[in-house]
Parts: sequence; structure tokens; C-alpha cells
Amino acid sequence: MTLAYDGTDFRGWARQRDPSIRTVEAVLTELVSRLVHEDVRLSVAGRTDAGVHARGQVASFRTASSVAPDRLREAVNSVLGPEVVAIRASYAPDAFDARSSASAREYRYVLNTATAPDPFAARFEWHRPGSPSIARMRAAAQALVGEHDFASFCRHPGSGKSTVRDLQRLSIRLDGSRVVFSFRANAFLHQMVRSLVATLVAVGDGKLDPSDVERMLSARERSATKGMLAPARGLSLDRVIYGRRRR
Amino acid sequence: MTLAYDGTDFRGWARQRDPSIRTVEAVLTELVSRLVHEDVRLSVAGRTDAGVHARGQVASFRTASSVAPDRLREAVNSVLGPEVVAIRASYAPDAFDARSSASAREYRYVLNTATAPDPFAARFEWHRPGSPSIARMRAAAQALVGEHDFASFCRHPGSGKSTVRDLQRLSIRLDGSRVVFSFRANAFLHQMVRSLVATLVAVGDGKLDPSDVERMLSARERSATKGMLAPARGLSLDRVIYGRRRR
Repeated sequence: MTLAYDGTDFRGWARQRDPSIRTVEAVLTELVSRLVHEDVRLSVAGRTDAGVHARGQVASFRTASSVAPDRLREAVNSVLGPEVVAIRASYAPDAFDARSSASAREYRYVLNTATAPDPFAARFEWHRPGSPSIARMRAAAQALVGEHDFASFCRHPGSGKSTVRDLQRLSIRLDGSRVVFSFRANAFLHQMVRSLVATLVAVGDGKLDPSDVERMLSARERSATKGMLAPARGLSLDRVIYGRRRR
Repeated sequence: MTLAYDGTDFRGWARQRDPSIRTVEAVLTELVSRLVHEDVRLSVAGRTDAGVHARGQVASFRTASSVAPDRLREAVNSVLGPEVVAIRASYAPDAFDARSSASAREYRYVLNTATAPDPFAARFEWHRPGSPSIARMRAAAQALVGEHDFASFCRHPGSGKSTVRDLQRLSIRLDGSRVVFSFRANAFLHQMVRSLVATLVAVGDGKLDPSDVERMLSARERSATKGMLAPARGLSLDRVIYGRRRR
């Protein structure tokens, strides 16, 4: 299933032990399980945090049921839409797993620098009046692209787990009053994009130098970035890439 | 003041006798009155209905206070934003009145015909899967443009009041899966745009002929359109035009 959702009223993707906590995985698992008359376990490409959105999330599950993918899609859209929407649903090869088969993920972060917030986009962007320098942010971004240990930009690495990721692309473009950050990596660490965006914006504002970002990266510990974090609302998982495709 | 707002959680613009009913006029009047230490009365260009949005609403008021327009704008945005936002605020000539000085209003209606709803735009469009014919809707629209008695497309004309309006423009364009209707008239009747959109969509679907619309218009009574009404969420007041400008 390819999913889009407005993450505003969810405590993220991942199901919590407390069943009263509303997460995307919880509502989807319940619906799908009811539909296929079986307890399913969803595998997901990106475990989005509380308040983070998705335009192209991918989730998969195994089932003995022969329910038609189109019926599944329609059920999701009629019960959970427009908050959570299944854009596509299809059978997948046996070896497919939404998480482990994914070769890359693309996230988008939107910062609106206009004086007044936009009532029509407020749920999906960080409103912060100002005029951060795009040139400075791009200069800082260059040090980040490539395979690095991103421990400084990760909240909960998990003990013993690698914090090395391959950031394949980081583009920053201006769209009217909006700054749009696009990230592609093989995988992302916890809060990595929001931590990188906050750092880049500090560079754009002149509070940090591009060279500081390089130093932060080499420090390989969270304290180097002082826990700076851009708000969740501006972030969305745009696309998951399967297969070897890479640029 | 030029205002933008997400009308979803408002019972329209107009203040109601029951103060517990949340309207845009009520929350704005309260805030502005507090700011200028005086009971103000807002005049507004378009009295939007419950659930209808605005991108370029205009409201004015008289005050003896010398509060700076920028302070007013900032107060609105910090207290009511991002739901209600003041895009601009300025002093106006003595004779200016947001309602009576307006020479034309522009409304936009967005219909999304995609199979699945869009979680990011759902509050601001009518989601209705299908593929209405643009050509048929445009043909029907031709009969509507110009000065006509629009009584058939009005819910509460008010006794003795004229239901003649000059529909200066009605354009219909396709934008991906979306049909965007743009209306400009000297003024609009109650529920006129939503009634016209519902009628045009029925034409696009082949349930009505373009010639039926001409007949409905000539009937000059609400029953002719069977009360068809497109949902409020798809409608927004885009712009108010002052001065003689007209095309």
C-alpha cells in the first residue's frame, strides 16, 4: 500500500503499548485485520514521528486472505480518509517487505518565511518569518551529502546500532516565500531531517557558519547540535524507492 | 484589513445573537475592540457561510483610536493565526467601507475528481471522484455570464430585495485531477456560487443539459434548481475589487 496522511492528529506511525494512543499504524492495523479476518503486522518504510506527514509512505503485510487490493484501498479511504488515504494497493512478490526492500527514502521539509502564516498550509509547514540565506544553507549542505556518521543529528540512536547513513541528495530551493528542503538517503536516523533543517536554518540566519556544520558532523554526538529541532509539521515522507535505482 | 481564513471550524463570517456560536466576525470584533479600547463594528465585503474560506476577504471599521495598522495586523496574527490571518492592514479614506465600496468579488471553487481524497487539501476542496465534462460545463456557463436575475440560485433572497447580479466572469479550468471554477460578480446572492457549481457539475456528469441551466435561470425561483448545493469546504473568497476596474 502506498499511503498519504495528515500526521497532525497522530502520535506518529508506530503503534504504542497503550492502545489509547492514536497512531497511524494502530488505526491501519485494526482496519486491515478486520478486513482480512486475521491479525496482520504492518511493515513500513518510514516510521514517521508524531505530527509528521506522508505523501508516499509504503506499508506491506502478509496475509492468507485473498481480499482484492482495490477493496483494501477503498476500505482504507472510506473509513480513514481523508486523514489517511491509500493511493495504491497491490499484491507484491513474496520476498517484498516495505521496510527491508526499500533502497532509499525521500523526505521534504517546508519552511514558510512570510510575515503572516498561511491558513491553508499551516498544518504542513514551519512558519517562521525571516529571510535565511539560501546560498549559505547550500554551502553548509555540501558537507552533509555523502556517507557519514550522522550521530550528531540523531535523537535515539539505539545502543550498538550504526549511525552511518548515505545522504544521497540534499537540495534547497526557494518557492515564493517558502524554502523547500529535499532529502534522499538510503535510510534516516531518528529526527535526522528535523535536526538537519534546524541546523541549516541557523546557518541561513547567520547564527552558525557553514564550517560549524562540518564540525558538528565530525563530533558524532548529539550535544554538538544542542538538540536543535525543526517542528514536525513541516516534514513529510514523500517517496520510497525500491530496487537499485539511485542517482 | 485584508484577511485569509480557514473557515472549517467557523459558523461563517456573520456574528450571531448567541455568543457561543463561533464566527469569524465575532472573534475578530472581540480582538479588535480590545485593542482599540472601543466597541467596533466591522463592515465586510463578503459574508461567507459556515465552512467557507477566504484568501482575500476585506473588512473595515471606524475608530477614534490611533493604533498603528501594523500593530493591528500583528495582534490578529499572533492571537488568531494561523486560522485567521491579517495579510495587510492600513488606514483607509474616510468614505471607504469594505462592503459598500467594493465593486466586485471573486470566488474560487475547487472540485477534486481523483479516486482518493488528498489529505493535504481535504479541508479546502470538494472530493468527488468522477470525470465531469469540462466542455459541457463551459457550454452551460455561457448562459450564466452577464446581468441576470439569479433567484433560482439563491437560498434566502430576503423579501423585496433584488436578486439581479452581474456575473462578469465564470471560468472553468482543469488542474490535474482538480476542476477550478472562478467567479467574478459585482456581488453574490446567498449560496449562489455553491448552487451554480452543483448545477454545473450535474451538467458535466450528463445529468442535466446545458440548455436546462438556461431554463433554470429563466424560472427565477429556487425550486427550479431543486436546492442542489456543492459543499462549503470547496469555496473561498479570493479577492475583493475596489474602484471602477472591471473586465
